[in-house]
Amino acid sequence: MKIFSFWRSLATYRVRIALNLKGITPDEVIEINLLKGQQRDAAFKAINPMGAIPALIDGEGPPLFESLAIIEYLDEIKPNPPLLPKDPKARARVRGLAQIVACDSHPLVVPRVREYLAHEFKVDEAGVAKWAGHWIAAALGALEQHLTHGKQTGNFCHGDQITIADLCLASQAAGAHFFKVDMGPYPTVKRIADNCMKNEAFAKAHPLKQPGAPAAA
Amino acid sequence: MKIFSFWRSLATYRVRIALNLKGITPDEVIEINLLKGQQRDAAFKAINPMGAIPALIDGEGPPLFESLAIIEYLDEIKPNPPLLPKDPKARARVRGLAQIVACDSHPLVVPRVREYLAHEFKVDEAGVAKWAGHWIAAALGALEQHLTHGKQTGNFCHGDQITIADLCLASQAAGAHFFKVDMGPYPTVKRIADNCMKNEAFAKAHPLKQPGAPAAA
Repeated sequence: MKIFSFWRSLATYRVRIALNLKGITPDEVIEINLLKGQQRDAAFKAINPMGAIPALIDGEGPPLFESLAIIEYLDEIKPNPPLLPKDPKARARVRGLAQIVACDSHPLVVPRVREYLAHEFKVDEAGVAKWAGHWIAAALGALEQHLTHGKQTGNFCHGDQITIADLCLASQAAGAHFFKVDMGPYPTVKRIADNCMKNEAFAKAHPLKQPGAPAAA
Repeated sequence: MKIFSFWRSLATYRVRIALNLKGITPDEVIEINLLKGQQRDAAFKAINPMGAIPALIDGEGPPLFESLAIIEYLDEIKPNPPLLPKDPKARARVRGLAQIVACDSHPLVVPRVREYLAHEFKVDEAGVAKWAGHWIAAALGALEQHLTHGKQTGNFCHGDQITIADLCLASQAAGAHFFKVDMGPYPTVKRIADNCMKNEAFAKAHPLKQPGAPAAA
């Protein structure tokens, strides 16, 4: 198994956590340096035409793409420990929480979007930071409401089982740190993020623990 | 079953197609008028804190949210006709194609994002239209590459079975129409979108066929 990765990619962070939880060690980790724009190179676009990471090649391929699709793939080929509950409504809740992060928030703060704002709309650095903070906070607020009011919330998003929602919540917390979003208004999210970080599968997958990462960011 | 819906919502369009394919008629369709900002009303935010549609309540609830989570729920409670293939790599491909639309593209053009650009960054109408067109085209380009080069592409995204990827592709084609994006450069996407529209489940779910829709948009 080969994974296309970069230390700072929050979507790749989610997949790294899943790999760790499943006990899968990729044979190869191929760096796609987002800060150098390598995701736009023709060689990588042949792997993933969207020009985004992660991408994952298992055996003969073809390359798999989109973090949640890859995580569900890993969950299907190696079902233990499961990353989704069994009941359909519970699965929908977990997938919905994950998608608040992976659909409603993270796609708005990826490099290509921040670059578009800066180049096309001439938004300055402070404006781009405000934009990123706004969408990260919007999702954190929605997660907080769901998790505070949801009867199923436990040590993790859904009871005491680690699910796809926790992988996404952890990536959202890392994004909040990168973009200096105060976690104070989101105590339930923070509690769960802290629980996640006590787990080695999350801790060693963290962006700042990857090759190439700065000492602090 | 109750669905919170609006004629123009592309994410709700996907769910309507799934309901039609599964032969499920909701007992109630509750309009959340996005043009009047009803998605931000406290009453609706108690249903979905993200302030987005669709949301769906089946029986006692709780409300389900996020279109792809709802569609997989419907696929799990009513497995026929299936909206995912059986093979894990095929499922990952279908989910990945769906997520190119539902994660990488559509969240960038929803009302709350266009409103932020206009209000916070003072982007004019032409600029917002250019923004929307850019992200819609980026995903259409990625889909076209996947579908042209993928050996599994058939009458639909994955062979001749209608899958979640087709629901998303149809919503992307409707979005391209709304935002006047030329489909010329994406002949494979267009071919599949045309095949979808020959199916009554897609045709009658189309935004322009819903109550409240203008005669043309």
